[in-house]
Amino acid sequence: MPEPMHQIVLVKLPEGRLTPDCFRLETATRPAPGDGEVLLRVLYITLDASNRAWMQGPTYRAALTAGGVMYGRALAEVVESRAEGLSPGDLVFAETGWREWAAMPGRQVQKRPRTDPLTHQLSVYGISGLTAYHGLLDVARMEAGDTVVISAAAGAVGTIAGQVAKLRGAGRVVGIAGGPEKCAWLTSELGYDAALDYKSPVPIRDQVREACPGGVDVYFDNVGGPILEAMLAEMKLHGRIACCGSVSTYDAQTPAPGLRGAPGLLVTKRLTMAGFIVTDFAARRESALAELRGWVDSGAMKVPEHITEGLEGLPAALVGLLAGENRGKRIVKVG
Amino acid sequence: MPEPMHQIVLVKLPEGRLTPDCFRLETATRPAPGDGEVLLRVLYITLDASNRAWMQGPTYRAALTAGGVMYGRALAEVVESRAEGLSPGDLVFAETGWREWAAMPGRQVQKRPRTDPLTHQLSVYGISGLTAYHGLLDVARMEAGDTVVISAAAGAVGTIAGQVAKLRGAGRVVGIAGGPEKCAWLTSELGYDAALDYKSPVPIRDQVREACPGGVDVYFDNVGGPILEAMLAEMKLHGRIACCGSVSTYDAQTPAPGLRGAPGLLVTKRLTMAGFIVTDFAARRESALAELRGWVDSGAMKVPEHITEGLEGLPAALVGLLAGENRGKRIVKVG
Repeated sequence: MPEPMHQIVLVKLPEGRLTPDCFRLETATRPAPGDGEVLLRVLYITLDASNRAWMQGPTYRAALTAGGVMYGRALAEVVESRAEGLSPGDLVFAETGWREWAAMPGRQVQKRPRTDPLTHQLSVYGISGLTAYHGLLDVARMEAGDTVVISAAAGAVGTIAGQVAKLRGAGRVVGIAGGPEKCAWLTSELGYDAALDYKSPVPIRDQVREACPGGVDVYFDNVGGPILEAMLAEMKLHGRIACCGSVSTYDAQTPAPGLRGAPGLLVTKRLTMAGFIVTDFAARRESALAELRGWVDSGAMKVPEHITEGLEGLPAALVGLLAGENRGKRIVKVG
Repeated sequence: MPEPMHQIVLVKLPEGRLTPDCFRLETATRPAPGDGEVLLRVLYITLDASNRAWMQGPTYRAALTAGGVMYGRALAEVVESRAEGLSPGDLVFAETGWREWAAMPGRQVQKRPRTDPLTHQLSVYGISGLTAYHGLLDVARMEAGDTVVISAAAGAVGTIAGQVAKLRGAGRVVGIAGGPEKCAWLTSELGYDAALDYKSPVPIRDQVREACPGGVDVYFDNVGGPILEAMLAEMKLHGRIACCGSVSTYDAQTPAPGLRGAPGLLVTKRLTMAGFIVTDFAARRESALAELRGWVDSGAMKVPEHITEGLEGLPAALVGLLAGENRGKRIVKVG
């Protein structure tokens, strides 16, 4: 007898700002695993700005289209297995979509250890933590003594990146975030040497120049747009920019205007800008996780997570994330 | 008894397109060298698009201002020396400015060997040749088999870069230039596999897609602007872009619009864009020169030079260079 479950469908693509009415909660039938598949109970769904970027067009994956279950990544538990190497009780990371249950091919899920808390598998030991680590150390090649600036500093990646920078010996670590409360939190709780409020009436470029009078060696860019433009002008000679995303443009109705200063400032300052996604560094994943685990276990690294409960809250949580509401990793507990 | 000489003064900064009336030929007195200085007879002055960029504002050097002798780099002969290590008859590279004679501190000139022809010291063995070499191999890290696209391909840097790419085993080398004659010359004389005319009514992006159906590994950018935008979209995953200059913007009256697609395409395709100037690679200069010499001496590499005579022709030559008139290295014979 088929059992019901809930799932969330993307009923239309947003025009401009993403709103909750782009989604609909519906009841479906719990799927049954086929040959080679596992049945998963979804525990936690992770939210990322990239979820919104997928709606804009093809990125490193095909564009999202309206009418299907919203794509999403989750931590899930294997309940029934018809796939080799996977057993009931296994914890896995999988792209289940926004639903309570999913049946998926065993080769599309990745086993994960049962850390305490489990949610660290989605934050510091997940895509966000590894993105921070590899972006800073492998893409921007941060060295001890560097002056480092990180945008979206209070977000899932920024909260880890700032701490990695300090723990690896950066000379000065400056975060950019929206609003005085977040900025105060970055310096009081997360060890940022300074935090700049991009919503303040003082232009961000002037704030950066005051906070980093000698210029910036490494800029970890999560936002693109005008903040990236301002940073181009404040980089030191031979500065390195890790391009992780451009959240400032994801909710734009019209295509973003171009990046002023490129390639002119890249040439005159001999800057490097490099885009990346975390899977580019799969070969270094285990050593990165080991270093992150060491910091977390010793208490040297804090792992801010912003967790709410209930599948039905996913649309509002994603909209909130894009509006800059969260501090640290945004996760929704589903089951 | 002081002897007269000619020199060219930048009488006003251009607004928009550079025109010959920004310059004035005047008569001055031949200088006498002071202590530690050499008296130079200027033989050849080299012209570069960067000469125009210097008028826009500070780059890797202070901005040019109106009222003085136009800056310029030259091959010159030491006629009188009051500097250690330099003797009459020595050939040197120096920033003499646009004049027939110059007195300069000995430590500001660089001795050069007397190659045949001498002008190769300003083309393949000078800034243009080394820029092509290091930009392609050290900045864009071209590897054998790569598909390579080079803009301003008929210019001083592009003519060398295309040949370096072929000689180092690129799979496919495609040039971008203005007009069917230049394009035909690139393929018939310089070994380019294909040449694309950016002045053609067919959009350059469509031309690139047809010429490089599998995408582009390395793009050597000399122009910035819309061609760079088109290339961002045609790069392969993990493609590398060497940013050498942006001649498309130097003559602009208003600041260039921004670069569309950055940082978005950098992230989704994991591209690297790196600006550079040739002095960044001083440590590898001798080995680069040795490899270039080997190719030139064996006849494997052609060295197109576009030489005209007479100091008074410098303004028109620079204006012509910016308009895309020349093929290969533009040089004016002065003395």
